[in-house]
Amino acid sequence: MISRISILGTGLLGTSLGLGLKAAGFTGRIEGWSRTKEQVHIALRMGAIDAVAVDPIAAARESEVVMLSMPIFATLDFMAQLSGQLTPDHLVTDVGSTKRLISESAAQLYNKPNCPAFLPGHPMAGKERSGAALADANLYIGAVWLFTDVVAARRTPRAAELVKEWRNWVAALGSRVIDIDPVRHDELVAWVSHLPQFVATAMSALLEDEVGNAPELKDVGGRALREMTRLGASPYTMWRDIAHTNTEAVERALQALEQRLAHLRENLRTPALRGEFDQANRFRRE
Amino acid sequence: MISRISILGTGLLGTSLGLGLKAAGFTGRIEGWSRTKEQVHIALRMGAIDAVAVDPIAAARESEVVMLSMPIFATLDFMAQLSGQLTPDHLVTDVGSTKRLISESAAQLYNKPNCPAFLPGHPMAGKERSGAALADANLYIGAVWLFTDVVAARRTPRAAELVKEWRNWVAALGSRVIDIDPVRHDELVAWVSHLPQFVATAMSALLEDEVGNAPELKDVGGRALREMTRLGASPYTMWRDIAHTNTEAVERALQALEQRLAHLRENLRTPALRGEFDQANRFRRE
Repeated sequence: MISRISILGTGLLGTSLGLGLKAAGFTGRIEGWSRTKEQVHIALRMGAIDAVAVDPIAAARESEVVMLSMPIFATLDFMAQLSGQLTPDHLVTDVGSTKRLISESAAQLYNKPNCPAFLPGHPMAGKERSGAALADANLYIGAVWLFTDVVAARRTPRAAELVKEWRNWVAALGSRVIDIDPVRHDELVAWVSHLPQFVATAMSALLEDEVGNAPELKDVGGRALREMTRLGASPYTMWRDIAHTNTEAVERALQALEQRLAHLRENLRTPALRGEFDQANRFRRE
Repeated sequence: MISRISILGTGLLGTSLGLGLKAAGFTGRIEGWSRTKEQVHIALRMGAIDAVAVDPIAAARESEVVMLSMPIFATLDFMAQLSGQLTPDHLVTDVGSTKRLISESAAQLYNKPNCPAFLPGHPMAGKERSGAALADANLYIGAVWLFTDVVAARRTPRAAELVKEWRNWVAALGSRVIDIDPVRHDELVAWVSHLPQFVATAMSALLEDEVGNAPELKDVGGRALREMTRLGASPYTMWRDIAHTNTEAVERALQALEQRLAHLRENLRTPALRGEFDQANRFRRE
């Protein structure tokens, strides 16, 4: 039975996880840590964590499950630091938005004899604005939670038990667990997550140039414009790491969309436009 | 006092208008007509209209206000037909999504001595799926309703009175009226309405090609993907007319976005990416 969890990184995802676990009936102890003191104290006040950890490494050592909920490069740094400090009876997991580098690091530093266990995870949940103050116990309800665990991961019986129990907690949060290969993961999210984000960013930046000085004109666009640019509020700090760790797949998706837009633009007055609408309608069929 | 209105085209917008007018206290008679019989009978059953008109021209003649709620080319056809059949005491208005051609036709055929009055309108309301069955008395609440009336429109006192009264009914629906020049209208909506639509269409069509055969993978994208592709369900029939009547402005907007996406793609690993996120954040500042 998992009785101690440390959440390193109590932003939107980490704090929502603490709230969600408690709502789902977790009665063990949850310690939180954040690089930004303000964030961890918000998490404490919201009841997402039971205590503030001063030293993240010490907190991890005293836990059975360590959740790294922070940007990707910070996750990779902590993975390296923690691997030498933890034992095969520790499970480390994460919420990083790309999984190839994290799964490679896990295969090198974890999941081998005498090494701690690592379960790479990626909940498809979040908001366009970050921070503990926006945390929500229901954030993970109905969300897909992807795991890119290497099938052959060699673990001690105790570590295997921790992995199994943690997967049950994720299901208890209300998430739908899907297992997927890490390389396939990164290709897939380039299409269904990273492409929508970068399109919303480019469109929002363009519209800020074109109509940003006329706030009342934003109202003209209505719900459609609001939805298509909502992700324009997303923070650079998180997306920089995604852009750096999934560059090729994102480049392919963006270039494919650029070509598709050019094709549509060149066919605004030809019957080929019907073909594009028909194919788009198919994607949205119910 | 307006006592008879005919709504020609009882799809989503026309039927919602009938429902909205009645909810706002209009107690006169509303007749409806649709090219598709099924649509007008749905409107009748929903209580949006009081009677089904068999002949749209005859219905228009017997009304004080004629609403053309249909695609743009159909609106232009009816404008030409009706102009010879109506008197200076008739007001014709519309909901067409582009206004340059409609305003030109209005200046030629209406708003002159011995001609009926025409008030070009464009409510920024709708849904990604069309049809009377989706009509909603609240559709226009909070929406911007644009008018591109030519300032110098010469009207009889009776016609001027009808225009004033109709504008009051639009405000009574809960819409926010904004007056704008027709050419500026078409440029503006190319950015805030047509660009988001064509991007959603292109992205949905592309994703149907890439991940359309794996329905469970759509869930991975979650809310962000759903919002960014919702407009992918929009009907070609409506957007064909927009593409044909606002081609140059839409081409400019699409090409600008293609260039912006290429710039972002080429800078996924450079500090310029921060600039794009910062500018996008500005568009979404609250």
